[in-house]
Amino acid sequence: MKEIIFDLIEQGKYAEARKEIINMNVVDIALLFEEIDKAKLLVMFRILPKKIASGVFTHMPYDLQRYVIESIADKEVKSILDQLFLDDTIDFLEEMPANVVKKVLKNTDDKTRELINRFLNYPEDSAGSIMTIEYVDLKKEMTVKQAIQHIKETGVDKETIDTCYVMDNNRILEGVISIRKLILNEDNVLIKDIMETGVKYINTKDDQEEIAHLFKKYDYLVMPVVDAERRLVGIVTIDDIVDVIDQENTEDFQKMAAMQPSEKEYLKTNALDLAKNRLPWLLILMISATFTGNIIKKFESALQSVMVLASFIPMIMDTGGNAGSQSSTLIIRGLALEEIRLKDVLKVLWKEIQVSCIVAITLTTVNFIRIYYLEKTELLISLTVCATLFFTIVLAKIVGGTLPIIAKKLKADPAIMAGPLITTVVDAVSLLLYFTIATKLLGI
Amino acid sequence: MKEIIFDLIEQGKYAEARKEIINMNVVDIALLFEEIDKAKLLVMFRILPKKIASGVFTHMPYDLQRYVIESIADKEVKSILDQLFLDDTIDFLEEMPANVVKKVLKNTDDKTRELINRFLNYPEDSAGSIMTIEYVDLKKEMTVKQAIQHIKETGVDKETIDTCYVMDNNRILEGVISIRKLILNEDNVLIKDIMETGVKYINTKDDQEEIAHLFKKYDYLVMPVVDAERRLVGIVTIDDIVDVIDQENTEDFQKMAAMQPSEKEYLKTNALDLAKNRLPWLLILMISATFTGNIIKKFESALQSVMVLASFIPMIMDTGGNAGSQSSTLIIRGLALEEIRLKDVLKVLWKEIQVSCIVAITLTTVNFIRIYYLEKTELLISLTVCATLFFTIVLAKIVGGTLPIIAKKLKADPAIMAGPLITTVVDAVSLLLYFTIATKLLGI
Repeated sequence: MKEIIFDLIEQGKYAEARKEIINMNVVDIALLFEEIDKAKLLVMFRILPKKIASGVFTHMPYDLQRYVIESIADKEVKSILDQLFLDDTIDFLEEMPANVVKKVLKNTDDKTRELINRFLNYPEDSAGSIMTIEYVDLKKEMTVKQAIQHIKETGVDKETIDTCYVMDNNRILEGVISIRKLILNEDNVLIKDIMETGVKYINTKDDQEEIAHLFKKYDYLVMPVVDAERRLVGIVTIDDIVDVIDQENTEDFQKMAAMQPSEKEYLKTNALDLAKNRLPWLLILMISATFTGNIIKKFESALQSVMVLASFIPMIMDTGGNAGSQSSTLIIRGLALEEIRLKDVLKVLWKEIQVSCIVAITLTTVNFIRIYYLEKTELLISLTVCATLFFTIVLAKIVGGTLPIIAKKLKADPAIMAGPLITTVVDAVSLLLYFTIATKLLGI
Repeated sequence: MKEIIFDLIEQGKYAEARKEIINMNVVDIALLFEEIDKAKLLVMFRILPKKIASGVFTHMPYDLQRYVIESIADKEVKSILDQLFLDDTIDFLEEMPANVVKKVLKNTDDKTRELINRFLNYPEDSAGSIMTIEYVDLKKEMTVKQAIQHIKETGVDKETIDTCYVMDNNRILEGVISIRKLILNEDNVLIKDIMETGVKYINTKDDQEEIAHLFKKYDYLVMPVVDAERRLVGIVTIDDIVDVIDQENTEDFQKMAAMQPSEKEYLKTNALDLAKNRLPWLLILMISATFTGNIIKKFESALQSVMVLASFIPMIMDTGGNAGSQSSTLIIRGLALEEIRLKDVLKVLWKEIQVSCIVAITLTTVNFIRIYYLEKTELLISLTVCATLFFTIVLAKIVGGTLPIIAKKLKADPAIMAGPLITTVVDAVSLLLYFTIATKLLGI
């Protein structure tokens, strides 16, 4: 199917291609357009029905959106914009260079331009920046019949008319009612008698991550957004929240792997920016690792007298790092999902002590069998290695389990207390432990 | 507020507490109930209106749900079940022991029991296991007026009546229409003239992760689920998808930190189970790390003659591990969000080569200044360390960037190719490199 349309366009059979395309989902059309020649894309884009064209536009990658806007006439820009939802317009404008923004603003009416400018001023990642202003507003004195009539008159462009908001004359939010409830009630019932009051709302400046938590906690599909004077200014819908969840998770993955978070897709980020995101933590951790190196230096003569000790260093370091990462990952994730709270720190500590003992005993036993019985390492050296391994695992799990909670208590991001940092901390302590036990036990 | 109700219940003033509670959100009531004495919880639970009680029940943790069902009479069980959505009943039954399941099934009618049994047989994480059967079904010969009448008669219990499904007499899905479109059309318009056809649907056996991708790709709020004969059997709604996304992300976090994935909350998992999830990979990685140890052993005499070389081992190992983790994390995440595809492997390789060169040159330079100029390490040793560091970083980023894609190509889970495994691989190679360069350059 896709190949057929592709060939039709390549051969310049635009009218035939159009016939097939208009039955496709706009998301799929946008994906198809990514692969065709740009000049041909423009032809196709122009001959599509307005509504489909703007739907396709919404789902195009930013570089193609930019190309389209830069290539088409002012009149055409206007016809696309007229069909777009305001929040989609904002999303795309936020990524455009000044000349494109200018061309777009030139082709919008005064009211829309004012709205766009207001939206572009909301802080990034705030409710204001992800909300939409297309919602249905009712008055509490309306009857069900009047309300439905009002929706019929104004509702065609509303993104979510499943939920209607009841406001007073100053646009202060008074209640909410679902379309479902409207049609399940008789025509002459008053809105104020069936609307739900005490509605939870969010503020334009609230952080999107907090909002995502509310949606998940209460299973909301939509939430109203109010300004500082409690006037209704927009709504946030769950499909925006799905994007927020992905975005926040990506940020956590990046932070936990010692990178500066970035919202930009990997393949669309240039090498220099990728390197910039990765360098700071690599530098910090590299320099921290020299502390560990200094511990080895300090015990150089002890190591020189029993050289075989050196060969166990990677195993101790890696196992400690891995054991700590496991714990910190679970705790960071638990905090992010609000399954673990600050007050649970002692519960976590106790659990990690138990888990670390089980894990440490198992790993130490396996290790002892391997190095003493199989590799015939000296008994005292085997004991040194195993004792270090045991305490390293217990320590790693305690540090990994508690540092993220402590970070959160100090209002820092728990995700920083992940594998890389925990590994560096545990490395230093475990080597110090190793050589201390070795010098005592082996008398070196 | 919460404290007041808490005190009222503690003092046994149940009627007064009830008055406050019935105005609260059921999610908040469930949270409150978690903290009160179990016997008192039962009293409160019994005096709440049926609808609220079952809403609260849905949001209780599994251990409390179990306690409630085990404590109340059969008649009360039935009255809760009557109010529950089937998918919520299934969710809770899946976590209950046999005696509770039996008590529940005893108190449901034949039809519901048959449905429950069918649902419990759907594979875990399949569309069947997350779908709900409460949806509105219309016929294409209906007029808008008849359709709305039909919804009024049957729609009160439907979880999502915002989208209605049009089926033929054999329950084969023919089209879909939103409530919004219904009320925006005139009474005598026929459903078949305004319904949307060619609707995308999913199969009961489809994997939930694939379904989540469809929801995100097409911005769906709900999708129909059909059986092998294409008969409509249920719908999946976006609030279930939000849970799926969180669950799949948690699994990735766990796998990437070298753990067996588990859906159970950290604080609700006992120490033995937590240890079981963590042990396999720790064991595998611990034993793999002995290869790295063997490399050190092999070069023992070289190391003994230039002992200072040992002190740089942690820095080289850690930096290599961190550099590799960064790359593999970005690629694994990109693959999970379908931003990176299998065919992009060469693009990723080229990008990682560029990034690794920028990163490696910077880190190597900083390191050279530190160890040669500041710590006055011998020039040849400094050069050995820096050359190793350079190649380790480049190698780590190439391995970290490509292994996840190769894993996916081999139908394995890319998330396994994360920090811990990459670190172990890079450790061994980097130490081999280190000692090879050292023996050549220092002539030891």
